[in-house]
Amino acid sequence: MHEGGKIATKSRVSIKTIADVRKIYTPGVAAVCKDIEAKRDLAFKYTAIPNQVAIVTNGTAILGLGDIGAVAGMPVMEGKAALFDHLVGVSGVPILIQNHDPQVIIETVRNIAPTFGAIKLEDIKAPECFEIEDVLDRELNIPVMHDDQHGTAVVVLAALLNATRFSGVMLRKSVIGVIGLGAAGMGISKLLMSYGVKRVIGTDLCADACERLNAAGGKSCSLDDVMKNSNIVIATTGCPGLITPDMVRQGSVILALSNPNPEIEPELAMSYGASFAADGKSVNNALGFPGIFRGALNVRATQINNKMKIAAAQTIARYAEETELVPSLLHPDVHGAVTAAVERAALESGVIRPWD
Amino acid sequence: MHEGGKIATKSRVSIKTIADVRKIYTPGVAAVCKDIEAKRDLAFKYTAIPNQVAIVTNGTAILGLGDIGAVAGMPVMEGKAALFDHLVGVSGVPILIQNHDPQVIIETVRNIAPTFGAIKLEDIKAPECFEIEDVLDRELNIPVMHDDQHGTAVVVLAALLNATRFSGVMLRKSVIGVIGLGAAGMGISKLLMSYGVKRVIGTDLCADACERLNAAGGKSCSLDDVMKNSNIVIATTGCPGLITPDMVRQGSVILALSNPNPEIEPELAMSYGASFAADGKSVNNALGFPGIFRGALNVRATQINNKMKIAAAQTIARYAEETELVPSLLHPDVHGAVTAAVERAALESGVIRPWD
Repeated sequence: MHEGGKIATKSRVSIKTIADVRKIYTPGVAAVCKDIEAKRDLAFKYTAIPNQVAIVTNGTAILGLGDIGAVAGMPVMEGKAALFDHLVGVSGVPILIQNHDPQVIIETVRNIAPTFGAIKLEDIKAPECFEIEDVLDRELNIPVMHDDQHGTAVVVLAALLNATRFSGVMLRKSVIGVIGLGAAGMGISKLLMSYGVKRVIGTDLCADACERLNAAGGKSCSLDDVMKNSNIVIATTGCPGLITPDMVRQGSVILALSNPNPEIEPELAMSYGASFAADGKSVNNALGFPGIFRGALNVRATQINNKMKIAAAQTIARYAEETELVPSLLHPDVHGAVTAAVERAALESGVIRPWD
Repeated sequence: MHEGGKIATKSRVSIKTIADVRKIYTPGVAAVCKDIEAKRDLAFKYTAIPNQVAIVTNGTAILGLGDIGAVAGMPVMEGKAALFDHLVGVSGVPILIQNHDPQVIIETVRNIAPTFGAIKLEDIKAPECFEIEDVLDRELNIPVMHDDQHGTAVVVLAALLNATRFSGVMLRKSVIGVIGLGAAGMGISKLLMSYGVKRVIGTDLCADACERLNAAGGKSCSLDDVMKNSNIVIATTGCPGLITPDMVRQGSVILALSNPNPEIEPELAMSYGASFAADGKSVNNALGFPGIFRGALNVRATQINNKMKIAAAQTIARYAEETELVPSLLHPDVHGAVTAAVERAALESGVIRPWD
């Protein structure tokens, strides 16, 4: 299925006669160009720009494979673009930047940004991903979102909304322990705090990562302390078996999300007293981005803020079947519903670019 | 026809079940990524990269409209991309860089180059276009071509091959006068010299442009001298009526190519003694690029050299009907024939990237 690539740029117009060519290309196209020159916002009507999302990677954190390079990451970018098209009709445009320097990524994306309605950062490793997203989000007047942080956080929040319902745990009043404070762990921690969780504790092998959690309003501690003190544990470490059965706190909820092998097998966690446990296979992190970007593009949002992410998470949670944490990625209604919820949240929070 | 944009990124794979998703996206995609990491050339088999051509502009010379900005130029880039798809199945990816500094264009294109099989520079004004193309062509191991120079030159050479046949003028032995030494004029001058024309003279209001012609092996002189001494005149100035009837040399061939209004109306030139005359409407400059890029991509050419351009021009000329200078852009066979000719010329001149 990957042969020849999974995406293509296709013409949306029918080209049958020279008269067609003269409309879509010279001389007919000149009038459209002049209209846009006079009134820049007409680009939203007459070009593909407002439907195009750059999918930008430097290949430093491709899936669980690490720094395999931008070109080797292309099949993932194409997979996201294929899903974008199939699920919500967005044109995803992979952009591969073979460079480790955050400044180069920032400069390059800034330079090509006029081509796009939004920027999706993808599979860029921590900590560079934080700086790149922060700077671009501040400087560009279009949405910029690092999917590994926020797309993942949205789907994990959706899963937690259902997991806590199943287990009778109160989400906002819980102590939530986040194990692994890379892109996903930090995105999850921040979104949970924004949702209203007061006590987020976490741990990481890297002291800088712990500092980032503290700076964001969480509290870093040891792995043992996380496991002892948390009602809800969320692990995104990439270390299979990191959580041993003796660490499981009675009645806790455990999401061990590393793929393909979780930090603890859900059945094992349950048999040692967890009230609910799941692994990454039950939490498809591609559920978030299609509707989030579609909604943001539809209303000309300038950013994707926490209200929009929380609205997306609540909507995703609502479409899960009785025993699911989150619905199927191919649920016929979920992406349209997320789109509508994100549009509403953007409008309500006023992060909309005014028309010229 | 322009509403909503003229292009879209579409999925080439069918996504009907979660099993499909698991093949095209995680976890199935990981194996493909690892294969490419191990053997980079597999990207040519398993990604869209070798079929993608960036269509890069800074919006400084959009059609005859001048510096209207990159975003206002998007409808032209989309038109080219739509033709790419329709005529030869190439994925054209517009990249808008709102910046006048050649260094910024060069840096940006260099940074995103791993995404593409070739780079098509478009509607970038002279003289910046020369430096940008020279540097990128030298530094990147994929073809880089500024269409306004070389695509136009190929189609003009094709037109001249037929015009000289009609009028009995010997092309290689002619004195060719080029009026206007911007991107198109310089591209035409260089390709004609490479084809074997010994005497190319030319003129431009700008002394730097005249210097560039002299440096390339031509000879700059006044407009009057060009008109007096040339068997063949090619004008790309954007100045309607620049050539007055009294300037027409008896028996000369005149291509007055500025659109929408030529430097002299063909009928007028003929009535004042030209043996043959035509305007830009008879010479569709989009005839060249589709087959040139398709052919270069097909054989993994590292550049688009003069042999490839001349092969393209000869092929285009051959497909013209009896009284045409060049065939219709929608001729059913011309683009396939140009593709094949360009492939052959690339192979013969050895500008092929070896497989790893």
